[in-house]
Amino acid sequence: MKNNILDNLINAFTCLPGVGNKTAKRMTYYLLQRAKDDALNLSNNLKEAVENTRNCRNCRNLCFEDLCPICSDSAREANKICIVESSSDVSTIEDNTEYKGLYYVLHGKLSPLDDIGPKEIGLDFLEKKLLSENIEEIILAVNYTIESDVTAHVISEIASNNNIKVTRLAQGVPVGGELEYLDKNTLLTAFNKRTNY
Amino acid sequence: MKNNILDNLINAFTCLPGVGNKTAKRMTYYLLQRAKDDALNLSNNLKEAVENTRNCRNCRNLCFEDLCPICSDSAREANKICIVESSSDVSTIEDNTEYKGLYYVLHGKLSPLDDIGPKEIGLDFLEKKLLSENIEEIILAVNYTIESDVTAHVISEIASNNNIKVTRLAQGVPVGGELEYLDKNTLLTAFNKRTNY
Repeated sequence: MKNNILDNLINAFTCLPGVGNKTAKRMTYYLLQRAKDDALNLSNNLKEAVENTRNCRNCRNLCFEDLCPICSDSAREANKICIVESSSDVSTIEDNTEYKGLYYVLHGKLSPLDDIGPKEIGLDFLEKKLLSENIEEIILAVNYTIESDVTAHVISEIASNNNIKVTRLAQGVPVGGELEYLDKNTLLTAFNKRTNY
Repeated sequence: MKNNILDNLINAFTCLPGVGNKTAKRMTYYLLQRAKDDALNLSNNLKEAVENTRNCRNCRNLCFEDLCPICSDSAREANKICIVESSSDVSTIEDNTEYKGLYYVLHGKLSPLDDIGPKEIGLDFLEKKLLSENIEEIILAVNYTIESDVTAHVISEIASNNNIKVTRLAQGVPVGGELEYLDKNTLLTAFNKRTNY
């Protein structure tokens, strides 16, 4: 049945994060009615990206070669590893900070309910790295949610066992933030972790 | 530069309605990291849909043949035309009402600021249809926004010139609606257009 082409496309769009059936339908009709060129372009770019990307064998970052540009750059400080949950976090940190060390991408966080254990996020490989390489600092740049907190804790234990310094991104009031609009937990944390001025 | 593959894909995603740069980036990384199969599937479905869809030569609805299934169905009432702004509205009306007439898809609405005049939404072709075919009722199923109101008015004038009855979808309180949460204009309209009970 030819009508299935539309249904298939609507269905295919729902694989995108945050896209449900209604949005998928809207996207489908919009592209086919008004932007067929854009749709073809999206199709081609998707195919090209899928076929040309892989994970770096050293840091698991999304890249196009066996080793990503950051890992193959000898000017980076190889004794620091910044641990992130996703490759997009690598690009965010690269764009917004002056960090010059290496990364390690978990591609997720510990979540026993979803069958995501230490192996799924590459903690076994990370432990081997810590044993064999000369790492001085692990920077935990994971999110501040409960599951990520657990992940951070497990990694910090692995690092401590190997006598490696572990740091984590500071918590507190966001830049430009107004106390009036801060949620209770952030305010409490910022108060308890207040620093000398 | 290989990194452009990612940027190109992020850019390509922004063609979707409601998708800005940040969402596009999230979609890109999500698909390439965790759902490459879904991404390929989406790419293939997009290509297939683009290559196999066209507009029906009679009603301009999105379809797969020269004539859409609705126009080629001789059981439909050919003396009624329901005018909609988008093919997705056709599918919504087909799914939710018992309307058995034909459709005419504008693919937009009059919007002089965006260079969308009567010709762009096919009003010249519609007028020819009204002259040559035996149409008894035009049902305006366009949106209730200012631009759509103008479009509805122009179409109703064309129809009146040809002595064709014009109706438009009823306005009022939505089913399940509570007066307390109704916006002012809807309440006012519902009050003014109150019907015998």
